[in-house]
Amino acid sequence: MTSLPWARLARRTHFSCGHRYYSPQMSEEENRKTFGLCYSEHGHGHNYVLEAYLLGPIDPVTGMVINLMQVDEILKKVTSELDHRHLNFDVPAFAEQVPTTENIARYCYGRVLEELNQLQSPVQLSSVRLYENEDLWVDYGQL
Amino acid sequence: MTSLPWARLARRTHFSCGHRYYSPQMSEEENRKTFGLCYSEHGHGHNYVLEAYLLGPIDPVTGMVINLMQVDEILKKVTSELDHRHLNFDVPAFAEQVPTTENIARYCYGRVLEELNQLQSPVQLSSVRLYENEDLWVDYGQL
Amino acid sequence: MTSLPWARLARRTHFSCGHRYYSPQMSEEENRKTFGLCYSEHGHGHNYVLEAYLLGPIDPVTGMVINLMQVDEILKKVTSELDHRHLNFDVPAFAEQVPTTENIARYCYGRVLEELNQLQSPVQLSSVRLYENEDLWVDYGQL
Amino acid sequence: MTSLPWARLARRTHFSCGHRYYSPQMSEEENRKTFGLCYSEHGHGHNYVLEAYLLGPIDPVTGMVINLMQVDEILKKVTSELDHRHLNFDVPAFAEQVPTTENIARYCYGRVLEELNQLQSPVQLSSVRLYENEDLWVDYGQL
Amino acid sequence: MTSLPWARLARRTHFSCGHRYYSPQMSEEENRKTFGLCYSEHGHGHNYVLEAYLLGPIDPVTGMVINLMQVDEILKKVTSELDHRHLNFDVPAFAEQVPTTENIARYCYGRVLEELNQLQSPVQLSSVRLYENEDLWVDYGQL
Amino acid sequence: MTSLPWARLARRTHFSCGHRYYSPQMSEEENRKTFGLCYSEHGHGHNYVLEAYLLGPIDPVTGMVINLMQVDEILKKVTSELDHRHLNFDVPAFAEQVPTTENIARYCYGRVLEELNQLQSPVQLSSVRLYENEDLWVDYGQL
Repeated sequence: MTSLPWARLARRTHFSCGHRYYSPQMSEEENRKTFGLCYSEHGHGHNYVLEAYLLGPIDPVTGMVINLMQVDEILKKVTSELDHRHLNFDVPAFAEQVPTTENIARYCYGRVLEELNQLQSPVQLSSVRLYENEDLWVDYGQL
Repeated sequence: MTSLPWARLARRTHFSCGHRYYSPQMSEEENRKTFGLCYSEHGHGHNYVLEAYLLGPIDPVTGMVINLMQVDEILKKVTSELDHRHLNFDVPAFAEQVPTTENIARYCYGRVLEELNQLQSPVQLSSVRLYENEDLWVDYGQL
Repeated sequence: MTSLPWARLARRTHFSCGHRYYSPQMSEEENRKTFGLCYSEHGHGHNYVLEAYLLGPIDPVTGMVINLMQVDEILKKVTSELDHRHLNFDVPAFAEQVPTTENIARYCYGRVLEELNQLQSPVQLSSVRLYENEDLWVDYGQL
Repeated sequence: MTSLPWARLARRTHFSCGHRYYSPQMSEEENRKTFGLCYSEHGHGHNYVLEAYLLGPIDPVTGMVINLMQVDEILKKVTSELDHRHLNFDVPAFAEQVPTTENIARYCYGRVLEELNQLQSPVQLSSVRLYENEDLWVDYGQL
Repeated sequence: MTSLPWARLARRTHFSCGHRYYSPQMSEEENRKTFGLCYSEHGHGHNYVLEAYLLGPIDPVTGMVINLMQVDEILKKVTSELDHRHLNFDVPAFAEQVPTTENIARYCYGRVLEELNQLQSPVQLSSVRLYENEDLWVDYGQL
Repeated sequence: MTSLPWARLARRTHFSCGHRYYSPQMSEEENRKTFGLCYSEHGHGHNYVLEAYLLGPIDPVTGMVINLMQVDEILKKVTSELDHRHLNFDVPAFAEQVPTTENIARYCYGRVLEELNQLQSPVQLSSVRLYENEDLWVDYGQL
């Protein structure tokens, strides 16, 4: 019986944003009912935590799935576009979609993947996890 | 090459219980040997943490896998039947099975699923995680 | 040699806000230099954690410094005026002062004290602690 | 201008108990009203965290305020009398007083002090902190 | 439609090590460039956290996937070979491979599996997780 | 009755070191007995957490006790002299004293104070806290 070893590196980083839940496709009343406190006009905000999960073989010389400096460079690039911004106003992607934890996770997955594809590395982005707070988070990936 | 996106929302909640490990199917001696300190006659207790993992498509209008208010209502219902109770005495399910972390996790999975099935939502309960403390937890699901 | 016993109860609660660092008493350039990323026009936000520290004798009958239900009622009142708001726009106190961690801590101390004074309890508010994130916080009190 | 250096070592440990809030000096109705869910007949329980704060000079040879092995021995002794017990039934001190966080903190302070006094060490127990959960704790000391 | 229940128990433990990143298969310059601060000659160290994930049926009598005392015995054995050691000097396995989080995770997986195989238990080691710090970890398993 | 307001800002940062407990003033046998596992020849290491507590009036214009950028610059300077080093070999201060949590805390207090004194700020360093791990820490200050 053979066995297939796998290793997955995870890296965690932080950023803080303002946001407001509001969909132009719904009436004011529907928005209020659907989003509750998150519909509050001037927005509020959170300390987000982003985790990236990277799957791949362990390099026999360096002992690494991917060099952490590369991961940190990518995550720095991705989060600096969000950090200390108000998502609805300052980040074009959220002009058209509600900045829910789900949508921000999907956005981060796409951005990390984009940056990762520019490296010539056998590593695969298996998923990202985005925490809005310690009691709420979303995992997003593509099979 | 196509890709299948997936998103999984996780929600965390807390409750506190008393419990005692004792199986009527074993002798006193076997109980003592198997359960150690947890066999202590009048029971002890824990701050439990329950996490529910919900898998589904992201609604293009609301940006949500499921409305968090619905999740919170379900989890409130499920945990209020356990919170500040002594599991062996106060919760019928644990009259017949030992209230181990494994069994409480299975119980919570069943109760969350029961409540979730009454909503008309495309969301799927992929698993629950139950922490007895920060160093011990159980994931329970059904494939 | 006599000894003076003391007991101090601490209660922790959470709220989320948007805010922006901007002082009308400084030029745009001074604001940018002083506040860095926090000067960002549309604001950003945080998950705040507020802790109230209450000092007093332990009641010999109830075994309590103060009934936790009273503390929770006060903290609920104080934080619900801030939760899911944009401090600069939605909370009058921060129309005139920069919503820094220091100023929000002072504001919370004042509000908790105000509410506490309406109870007839021998308990004393020794200080409050306000976390902007896990790496930055302010203790505020009055001697 | 002279300065007085001080150093304070803190050690953290864990134990789990069952307990029930009930005072024989109050009517059933008063108990229910005062203690709410904690009045629940068969009790519930918590993962307690106990921290001991020890103040003293740093020994110039060992670089220590007190040897950690001594601290751990004391805390092991104190917590093993509580761990996996139901406080109301199994710990005599709580036959006569309600096992609130305040009273358990006072009890732990007394027990740690008792054990510490048997060592010939210049160290002083400045206070103990007892967490019932991450949102509620009590500091207890004697001036 | 049938459903396949599964339960997975997780246990968390701590150990502290010194280590240095250095590969004899690379030049000094390549080592410095690849490993950055971790190449520092005399090494540095971390508080590692090891989690073992054990999959199996819940025993209908004991309510357990595996007896926690057995798990703790195994983890104690595995971590005591690493705790308070300098991995490069004191642990033979890391004489030949760089003690990266990836390699330490693989090593721990192998050692836990080895010990587990000596028990007659239906439980399966699905993976281990090793944290170097709260912002970096590796999951390792075999399919 | 007048009241004296006070505000104290706390900033938390991380660094990782190797160290070994060994005092040339004690015999090998005394060292082994006093320091236990920490006496291990090649050393081990930890993820340290350093917190600096800064006391002062809140500036009425900026709303700050001290500008966080200044604090971060100081802490960066102090911790970069320790981070990823082996304290006994790489940091002169620990050639002559055992790198216990107590001594490292005292060292950090001195270094932060030194850097702080070069700024013209009314702020006062009330103490530092150094965590060796989440269960052990030392507060150090000067009255």
